[in-house]
Amino acid sequence: MARKGNLMGVRPDIKVLDCTIRDGGLCNNFEFTDEFVRELYKTNVKSGVDYMEFGYKASRNLFDEKDFGKWKFCKEEDIRAIVGENISDMKIAVMADVGRCDFKTDFLPKCESVIDMVRVACYIHQIPAAIEMIEYFHELGYETTCNIMAISQANSNQVEEALAMLAESSVDVIYLVDSYGSLYPENAGDLAKVYLKAVESIDKQIGFHAHNNQNLAFANTIETLSYGVSYLDATALGMGRGAGNCAMELLLGFLKNPKYSLYSLLTFIENYMIPLKEQGVVWGFDLQYMFTGQLNRHPREAMAFTDEKRKDYCEFYKSLLENY
Amino acid sequence: MARKGNLMGVRPDIKVLDCTIRDGGLCNNFEFTDEFVRELYKTNVKSGVDYMEFGYKASRNLFDEKDFGKWKFCKEEDIRAIVGENISDMKIAVMADVGRCDFKTDFLPKCESVIDMVRVACYIHQIPAAIEMIEYFHELGYETTCNIMAISQANSNQVEEALAMLAESSVDVIYLVDSYGSLYPENAGDLAKVYLKAVESIDKQIGFHAHNNQNLAFANTIETLSYGVSYLDATALGMGRGAGNCAMELLLGFLKNPKYSLYSLLTFIENYMIPLKEQGVVWGFDLQYMFTGQLNRHPREAMAFTDEKRKDYCEFYKSLLENY
Repeated sequence: MARKGNLMGVRPDIKVLDCTIRDGGLCNNFEFTDEFVRELYKTNVKSGVDYMEFGYKASRNLFDEKDFGKWKFCKEEDIRAIVGENISDMKIAVMADVGRCDFKTDFLPKCESVIDMVRVACYIHQIPAAIEMIEYFHELGYETTCNIMAISQANSNQVEEALAMLAESSVDVIYLVDSYGSLYPENAGDLAKVYLKAVESIDKQIGFHAHNNQNLAFANTIETLSYGVSYLDATALGMGRGAGNCAMELLLGFLKNPKYSLYSLLTFIENYMIPLKEQGVVWGFDLQYMFTGQLNRHPREAMAFTDEKRKDYCEFYKSLLENY
Repeated sequence: MARKGNLMGVRPDIKVLDCTIRDGGLCNNFEFTDEFVRELYKTNVKSGVDYMEFGYKASRNLFDEKDFGKWKFCKEEDIRAIVGENISDMKIAVMADVGRCDFKTDFLPKCESVIDMVRVACYIHQIPAAIEMIEYFHELGYETTCNIMAISQANSNQVEEALAMLAESSVDVIYLVDSYGSLYPENAGDLAKVYLKAVESIDKQIGFHAHNNQNLAFANTIETLSYGVSYLDATALGMGRGAGNCAMELLLGFLKNPKYSLYSLLTFIENYMIPLKEQGVVWGFDLQYMFTGQLNRHPREAMAFTDEKRKDYCEFYKSLLENY
């Protein structure tokens, strides 16, 4: 499969999705101030970002609202308190996890909601459950995505079967998600080609969501983009679980479409993101995440190492090898 | 040009070169303790690193020895104080800058020196001067490289002419050097193919030296490697001027040849590199370097911004645009 477009041109099919509140919320328990979220919303509109994800629509039966910031639940009125009727060109997204969302009770019909897109996140064995949700959201009138997580641990047959099932569904966008940050650009590119091939004769798009465990989030994003992936997730200053995501400032600096503006984002980063780091919210590339990325493992042990403010990298690495 | 090898295999032509002391020395004025350099030497030997670069052979007429640590000058006796006769499989390299090195007086014949390789660094308009030095070092018995810096600002004709001249010379390795960290992997891969093509019928190798201004140092290194580049520069914890270099720990984690050992390096990082950072030696990816990388500019203004401990990223970005 040849590269689509070149490094100088504009690809009008590209959509940039900001998931700072959703993936970044995993770093601070979704406890962003309204001012922060409102300024990020305004920034994203000014920067030409195409979608902004506000958080999860998590089940209030499974999760106690008292234990989390409001963006774990993304109630309609909370989003509206930020965006009003969202009279902008930017669309609003939320994420719904398979098995952790009361989707039949917690979503309004699209005509009554300010939300435009529901992103359904699942592991590969949950594809049937994901498709049930996707069809439900599609019926309600929403754009939908299916974000298949931890793809570096799925085998090729599983991936092909999942893609065939999704090709038959109403889903609009299928996301390749490198949850463990263990893909190299060559892997990510090869997987992207498989995804793109699965939808080449139908009207569906492919997206990519990176993690920065091996410092490759941006590289993997532009590698998959070069073959035709068009929905690109990024976050301000790369904020996201563990090693974080593809940094929006790197991505906007790369894209040649003049609709994207780096400068508006820089103002937000200086005024809101760097203070967040200074307040002690922790994310970003570090050795412990590199280890789990190299070993193709969930970063949970690396996150615990970070939480405990440990610096004994060698001991930690040995413990990972012992539990291989 | 097809990729050479695959992600699972071993490429016996690959040589890893540690330039922590040389490029990292630009962050601390080459003021490493002997203990640090000795432990790094032992670490590199244990980790399977193929070459260790000790520093520059800078002119003592141009630079006052009192103003720099000893690795700016790499005297024979200083290297021998660390490595003795270097009874290891790892080779010793030094760098000689065109126009900043008294090469006719400061090098012993190879048979009297513990140095194995001299790396001649130049800008593309200095190729004739570089070749004069290369031939001189070749006559003395050294392995030689030519490291053409700032390649992102050279035009294609210049690059082809330089490569044709070097192809006729005695140089062993020609390095593609992304001094400004402004190449994307696709650019780096395309340039690598041009370099590889220039030497495909002769016995010369191609090397790559990355900078991390856009967080792409590792990605660019493995991209060029995938097409046949075989000499790979890296440094412990990515230490190097400004945004730093390709991190050795990422590279060793990627390479599948069992001769390379990540664990030995981790011990050194924990005991020596992290303390260096804690002592206030500064390097690594940050927004100011991203700006100069995106703008394909020398990082000198970003380095000054860093030295002044400034955090007004927006003002800095505007000043770069004003002086575009």
